[in-house]
Amino acid sequence: MIDKEDILIIDCLQYVNWNRQLFEEAKDGGLNIIHVTIAYWENKKEVIANIEMWNQHFKNHSDLIMPIRNCDDIQTAMDTSKIGIIFGFQNCSPIEDDIQLIQEMHDLGARIMQLSYNNQSLLATGCYEERDSGITRFGKEAIKEMNRLGMIIDMSHSAEKSTLHAMEISTRPIAITHANPSSFHDALRNKSDIVLKNLSESGGMLGVSLYPFHLANGSNCKLNEFCNMIYDATQLMGIDQIGIGSDLCLNWDYKVLEWMRSGRWALTPDYGEGSSEKPSWPNQPHWFEDFSGFQNIINGLGSVGFNSEEIEKIMGKNWLHFFELSFPVMDVRTND
Amino acid sequence: MIDKEDILIIDCLQYVNWNRQLFEEAKDGGLNIIHVTIAYWENKKEVIANIEMWNQHFKNHSDLIMPIRNCDDIQTAMDTSKIGIIFGFQNCSPIEDDIQLIQEMHDLGARIMQLSYNNQSLLATGCYEERDSGITRFGKEAIKEMNRLGMIIDMSHSAEKSTLHAMEISTRPIAITHANPSSFHDALRNKSDIVLKNLSESGGMLGVSLYPFHLANGSNCKLNEFCNMIYDATQLMGIDQIGIGSDLCLNWDYKVLEWMRSGRWALTPDYGEGSSEKPSWPNQPHWFEDFSGFQNIINGLGSVGFNSEEIEKIMGKNWLHFFELSFPVMDVRTND
Repeated sequence: MIDKEDILIIDCLQYVNWNRQLFEEAKDGGLNIIHVTIAYWENKKEVIANIEMWNQHFKNHSDLIMPIRNCDDIQTAMDTSKIGIIFGFQNCSPIEDDIQLIQEMHDLGARIMQLSYNNQSLLATGCYEERDSGITRFGKEAIKEMNRLGMIIDMSHSAEKSTLHAMEISTRPIAITHANPSSFHDALRNKSDIVLKNLSESGGMLGVSLYPFHLANGSNCKLNEFCNMIYDATQLMGIDQIGIGSDLCLNWDYKVLEWMRSGRWALTPDYGEGSSEKPSWPNQPHWFEDFSGFQNIINGLGSVGFNSEEIEKIMGKNWLHFFELSFPVMDVRTND
Repeated sequence: MIDKEDILIIDCLQYVNWNRQLFEEAKDGGLNIIHVTIAYWENKKEVIANIEMWNQHFKNHSDLIMPIRNCDDIQTAMDTSKIGIIFGFQNCSPIEDDIQLIQEMHDLGARIMQLSYNNQSLLATGCYEERDSGITRFGKEAIKEMNRLGMIIDMSHSAEKSTLHAMEISTRPIAITHANPSSFHDALRNKSDIVLKNLSESGGMLGVSLYPFHLANGSNCKLNEFCNMIYDATQLMGIDQIGIGSDLCLNWDYKVLEWMRSGRWALTPDYGEGSSEKPSWPNQPHWFEDFSGFQNIINGLGSVGFNSEEIEKIMGKNWLHFFELSFPVMDVRTND
């Protein structure tokens, strides 16, 4: 029998309006490492304001959380029982049009960046566009620079051709931090078997999502269905390339969802995965309403037949291994 | 015999490092209206600095130049024998990621904007990208807003599918201010017969370019070859949809060409239409080295068989008519 207290839990995507109580609840839920989103459409100046806010969190709640910049930090977080926080961007907007901002953002702590968020970006196409032109000229330069620095390429919200193209171009494995297989639930945000197969074969990681729009039966998806989806995914991708990327969004009002969906690019609201009739945040499944849900997933994974070692991989060890491979700086440039 | 002094000359693209002497030379060359480039990769703040510099020009050289904001201004410029200056962007970088900046830029005087410049932008694909996904979600919103305000959509540096797509989406005719037919010289920047045919049929305008990389035989292109190219283009597009967009670049050093080509998106130089062996500005054809060249073109057009009325259309009247159609604000939005 697995001792839940000892399980390393890494959630490779959350978007939470944090306060002390929520940090405490995350700790009670057993979370060790969380990849937190600090940008959707934010430009450089705006993302730096978000980083400054996080630096206040690190000061005010230093007993509960600490920033993760490298593999040593992960070890320190585990040794001191603090939640390790990894900064990530769901869009490339913080680097604006400037290749040099990748290093600047890396210096400020960013370790994961999506090349596009739903729409076409300067680097890649987003999953809501009708047509997909793959990685752009600037995108190729950006991938090279991210590879060099050890900033993880995340294609969760990117379109299919761009995603496959990124895997082809990147010299280091990429991630899809939060999405599910399309075979489980067909949505623009979920991923085809071809993408998942290529991802696993190139050493990349899939973080499975608990955002209702990515689940079969939405908010009514059963724990058992979710865990069976993970089981099926391991049949396709193997046991080593799958983790959790819950996409848990907590404590935000509707205005924030409007920002996530429409940024500054539309004069009239875009409803994204929702609709004008149901524009607001969807309800979470009852077994994953907050941080306590991770323990339900551990139980659920056991029920569909995973053994202790496999559950540990899915809940955190696979992401840990991936971070250990991904974070070290690697000068891939030649002198020519 | 045509009286050259009376011919209206509109050049629908120049990029010149202006000073009083050059304004005087432009006037001596017979120029009436010039579309001047004030952005390649400039963001909002940077383009406003360029506009402020132009506002100084308008103050310091008010006897020679004036800004064109609407059709009345064009008439005033002609009545007072001043050169009318139209602000244009060769990229959508000045609107950054913000649809509302289109109105702000229009208020500041911008009347022409390319949806992309060589690379993929947030709105459309550029002609140097390997793949072309057409107009993006943000691009569709931008076209609607440009149509409403009367800001001309320019696809000179955009890729083919994006260009055709823009014509399809835009409710007002678009322009290709500076490019030549690919049938004359096959270059990524020149345009296929399909594009030119669609352009003319939708009431759009082509401005023929004198930038050597767009010319057959480059710097050695003969006046006669250039004018025959115009003749062939009128066979395809009719006599009413063609004007001049010389792409005349004067008084800049190599650093500026590097900015035009590589912006901030590449860590190593991109040589664009040039090469690492010949990175610098190409030589202009000897018959179009500066503003005096427009009179050579008038002569050349006569030599290939155009009559006075046709020459007047090509040299300025077609652009004048297009501006009269394009500049009035038109609220194309409905209340739904």
